[in-house]
Amino acid sequence: MNRAGIIHTQQHHHLYLTSSHEAIIRIQVPKGEGVNVTVIHGDPYNWKDGSWQATHTEMKLLQTDDLYDYWSTSVSMPYSRMRYGFKIETTTEAFFYTERGFYTERPEEISAYFCLPYAHETEVFSPPTWVKNTVWYQIFPERFANGDASRNPDTTLPWGSESPTPDSFFGGDLEGVIQHLDYLQQLGITGIYFTPIFEAFSNHKYDTIDYLSVDPHFGDEDTLRTLIQESHKRGIRVMLDAVFNHSGYYFAPFQDVLQHGENSRYKDWFHPFELPLQPEGDRPNYETFAFVSSMPKLNTKHPEVRQYLLKVAKYWVEEFDIDGWRLDVANEVDHDFWRSFRNEVKNLKQDVYILGEIWHQSSPWLQGDQFDAVMNYPLTDAIQGYALHQQSSQDAQIALTKHVMSYPASVNAVQFNMLDSHDTARVLTTSNENKALVKLQYTLLFSFPGSPCIYYGDEIGMAGENDPGCRACMIWDETKQDKDMLAFLTQLIALRKRHSAFGTYDELSFLHSEDPAVLHYQTSTADETLYFVFNRSLETKSITLPKENQEQWIDLFSETTISPTFSLEQESFRVLQLKRTS
Amino acid sequence: MNRAGIIHTQQHHHLYLTSSHEAIIRIQVPKGEGVNVTVIHGDPYNWKDGSWQATHTEMKLLQTDDLYDYWSTSVSMPYSRMRYGFKIETTTEAFFYTERGFYTERPEEISAYFCLPYAHETEVFSPPTWVKNTVWYQIFPERFANGDASRNPDTTLPWGSESPTPDSFFGGDLEGVIQHLDYLQQLGITGIYFTPIFEAFSNHKYDTIDYLSVDPHFGDEDTLRTLIQESHKRGIRVMLDAVFNHSGYYFAPFQDVLQHGENSRYKDWFHPFELPLQPEGDRPNYETFAFVSSMPKLNTKHPEVRQYLLKVAKYWVEEFDIDGWRLDVANEVDHDFWRSFRNEVKNLKQDVYILGEIWHQSSPWLQGDQFDAVMNYPLTDAIQGYALHQQSSQDAQIALTKHVMSYPASVNAVQFNMLDSHDTARVLTTSNENKALVKLQYTLLFSFPGSPCIYYGDEIGMAGENDPGCRACMIWDETKQDKDMLAFLTQLIALRKRHSAFGTYDELSFLHSEDPAVLHYQTSTADETLYFVFNRSLETKSITLPKENQEQWIDLFSETTISPTFSLEQESFRVLQLKRTS
Repeated sequence: MNRAGIIHTQQHHHLYLTSSHEAIIRIQVPKGEGVNVTVIHGDPYNWKDGSWQATHTEMKLLQTDDLYDYWSTSVSMPYSRMRYGFKIETTTEAFFYTERGFYTERPEEISAYFCLPYAHETEVFSPPTWVKNTVWYQIFPERFANGDASRNPDTTLPWGSESPTPDSFFGGDLEGVIQHLDYLQQLGITGIYFTPIFEAFSNHKYDTIDYLSVDPHFGDEDTLRTLIQESHKRGIRVMLDAVFNHSGYYFAPFQDVLQHGENSRYKDWFHPFELPLQPEGDRPNYETFAFVSSMPKLNTKHPEVRQYLLKVAKYWVEEFDIDGWRLDVANEVDHDFWRSFRNEVKNLKQDVYILGEIWHQSSPWLQGDQFDAVMNYPLTDAIQGYALHQQSSQDAQIALTKHVMSYPASVNAVQFNMLDSHDTARVLTTSNENKALVKLQYTLLFSFPGSPCIYYGDEIGMAGENDPGCRACMIWDETKQDKDMLAFLTQLIALRKRHSAFGTYDELSFLHSEDPAVLHYQTSTADETLYFVFNRSLETKSITLPKENQEQWIDLFSETTISPTFSLEQESFRVLQLKRTS
Repeated sequence: MNRAGIIHTQQHHHLYLTSSHEAIIRIQVPKGEGVNVTVIHGDPYNWKDGSWQATHTEMKLLQTDDLYDYWSTSVSMPYSRMRYGFKIETTTEAFFYTERGFYTERPEEISAYFCLPYAHETEVFSPPTWVKNTVWYQIFPERFANGDASRNPDTTLPWGSESPTPDSFFGGDLEGVIQHLDYLQQLGITGIYFTPIFEAFSNHKYDTIDYLSVDPHFGDEDTLRTLIQESHKRGIRVMLDAVFNHSGYYFAPFQDVLQHGENSRYKDWFHPFELPLQPEGDRPNYETFAFVSSMPKLNTKHPEVRQYLLKVAKYWVEEFDIDGWRLDVANEVDHDFWRSFRNEVKNLKQDVYILGEIWHQSSPWLQGDQFDAVMNYPLTDAIQGYALHQQSSQDAQIALTKHVMSYPASVNAVQFNMLDSHDTARVLTTSNENKALVKLQYTLLFSFPGSPCIYYGDEIGMAGENDPGCRACMIWDETKQDKDMLAFLTQLIALRKRHSAFGTYDELSFLHSEDPAVLHYQTSTADETLYFVFNRSLETKSITLPKENQEQWIDLFSETTISPTFSLEQESFRVLQLKRTS
């Protein structure tokens, strides 16, 4: 066997806890080379007559990508402790793999084995249980609805009168959201993610002036309180956006440093390379988000800054009962800050959802001590690769498998999944206005473990290029709304809520596909088995169902029975439920 | 190429900081398959005319084991941020490897690349600088020297009168250590590691009764203060042992739970499965260290317990100026506790050495936020494997390489290296009383990066089986001391201190060896180059020096010039210095 491709580490995608008495163990073995993998495990202190009392548990082949088979099993630990190793069998050999390397005989010395020294209750990754059943709706408040004209900025343009620019204002506000909560409830939304609403200079509000005030163009504290209460009444949770990596240019402490330089008591709140500060030019002489001089990087290691930001984090939970924090540019803030953040916020309200904005692989932040989840852009990319960029279903399966296998199942179950956001082009635009492919992508997204999100307006067929194009005013004129898309997404949301195997299971099993345009997989829970099949091509495909003929499959959308072999039209999909014959 | 064997992760052995502007990147590539590896890196926000401004830096082949080549390089980050990927070339192909996988063309999309989002100063692993130059001496106080007979326990036996049992007392104490500090200074010792000295029931004191008192059989607070002051005067640092995983049976809070059960206010200080507690039998009905009923596991998640233990941690630093904490059973205590421990202790005294007792791979504790080092038993095992257990030098090189490559160089430089301890048989016994092989092992140990430690008495030829055999009384009768071993270790310590390439460098380069009994490697710093060669066999070996004839090599022990080819006697070694011809 190709031993260089046998990989097991102490990272959580290879070893994670489901409780203080149960762990999931995974190991990567070169694809197709292992026929049997067994984990040998036991309490390190459980000896009898001089020999270690270990148990053998067979592992299950969970997933396969282009290079690896991923074997997995759960093991129990009566005393919350474990040493363990692997027995790997091929058709021609059997050997043992432990922390110390490879052995032909099972090693006697317990010190050779991998070690899980103690499974602490507090180190079990435990995100809020409500997240995996939540369907989110992302609102960019300046563009969702103008409910209170008295709060319009001076330069407010008539709603939807023109395409947005980086600087335009259209007067969207929180009152506008309140007025449309029933609309969201009808759609089936159970969580709103708001981009920032605190006082700031720009229309996007990512350049905070005051972290403790609602932006006056959006409303006041009472408006927000009403909004949250009215949302909660409708079963809708509310997540706000915390921009703690950097402040805005007009944040008072930064203004103080600009004015007083060396003499400012706030100079250590930021990262000046030298003083006085020079915000002009391509490269400001202080640290910033990217090289944007209006977004000076906060020094989250400074005790006063930490105290201030943690006060902010607690204030909106304690006083306004928000349900989640989305953390902007979360990967550029230090881990120690986020650990304190989690402790403080979860102490106030245990089931707050902590979501980091990270676009790349995020394991360092998802060990249970910092975030519950990240914005799952790698999933977006994998879905687009298959649906829009002619990536084969085989390659898509590989990308999806690699991504999912890089996290514990408990993390995947609460990831924040979306096809677009205020930081990307809209899905309809990315899809070249092909609505069939938009529906296909949403179905794929909703079928995946995690918490799916719809970007405001996507449900009524809004298009838009990257910022600022994707931030156009919501279309409320019903004659201009895509009612078909709205009906589709309403049904999709309802189906996901109704069916436990629709995105809220732990693992999914990809099925082999000969056709590069056809992607399919099966999911199941104790209650049901679902089969998802997608055809992204311009040809009709003949699909044969994965189970025997006598079984009956029902199309969830049409509620009709499907024959074992059926035609799947171009750019379409099916979600089928296996009818149980008890 | 065998792509399943290409491994790069965000763990610190693959990516670590040397400052907020410099990172070390390592990648594992299947052995012998890569001929050139380049890292492509740049600031993620540094774009010009729509294209990312990346730099190409060639990596160096650092080490090789049986499966992998380890390539490494340092890269600079002017703005403390980096995206990066790899170009891997073989004799027949070239391809790119990034977070998203493999590419034949260099990917355009920056989101494909690995990401180091921000290099925080506070996240640079920064152990105390004194550690790598320190030579430790481990003292088991009950057995080192009896300096104050008035403190003898009632059952004290005459010094060295018989072999120790698990329960025997010989009256060793702190005054005895004070009386022998000059002896340690002459040996060249610059740090003492004391097994526990706080009030406890047993002779080993790992079952604490009072964490805030010196054990009355050992001395009092004044004795300890004098001991530390006198040590510091002699350039000797002092490390104490903190047993925070569990208390002793006679710890007052545990006694309270034993007596009052459900009504004890301390019941949450421990982990009872049920109450009342039943310490009898094989399996106590509460959590313990192993299944030892006299060592009840402390609940380090309980705020009062945390507060108490952190008070203890600070007390001995603040009041007695200790230089290090060795943490017993450190891997079974939660990470969050150790993070607080580090913060609190380092805030008091920045250069305290924090050393965890962990016997297995310890990366989760060595990320810079918890420990500075662990007790490096895997190194002990690798040295013994070669020197004592007939493991080939090739296999030893593989084991040593795998071990060293599983940590950043900055961690390896301060690991706590030893051949034995109070928890193992003594090296002389493990070596079957073969003193030549003991010297060989000590030289190998001292040549390695890290902080070497001598277990009390090894230097004068004491033998001893596992606990209690290894805990015999120190032999002070000079006629019974092995003076040859003492002279050897004194010289070895002096050489290590004098030569920068003797264990205090960052990396070592193994040399190919045809002979399974001959292990050799070269180390170098800006100042010097050393060559280490070991022959563990019963035959004389002919050694040819790795450099050209005209170069002159000097034997560090004999201070004689060595010819390019020389005979290496059985069970012996040479440490040679390359004479610079400037």
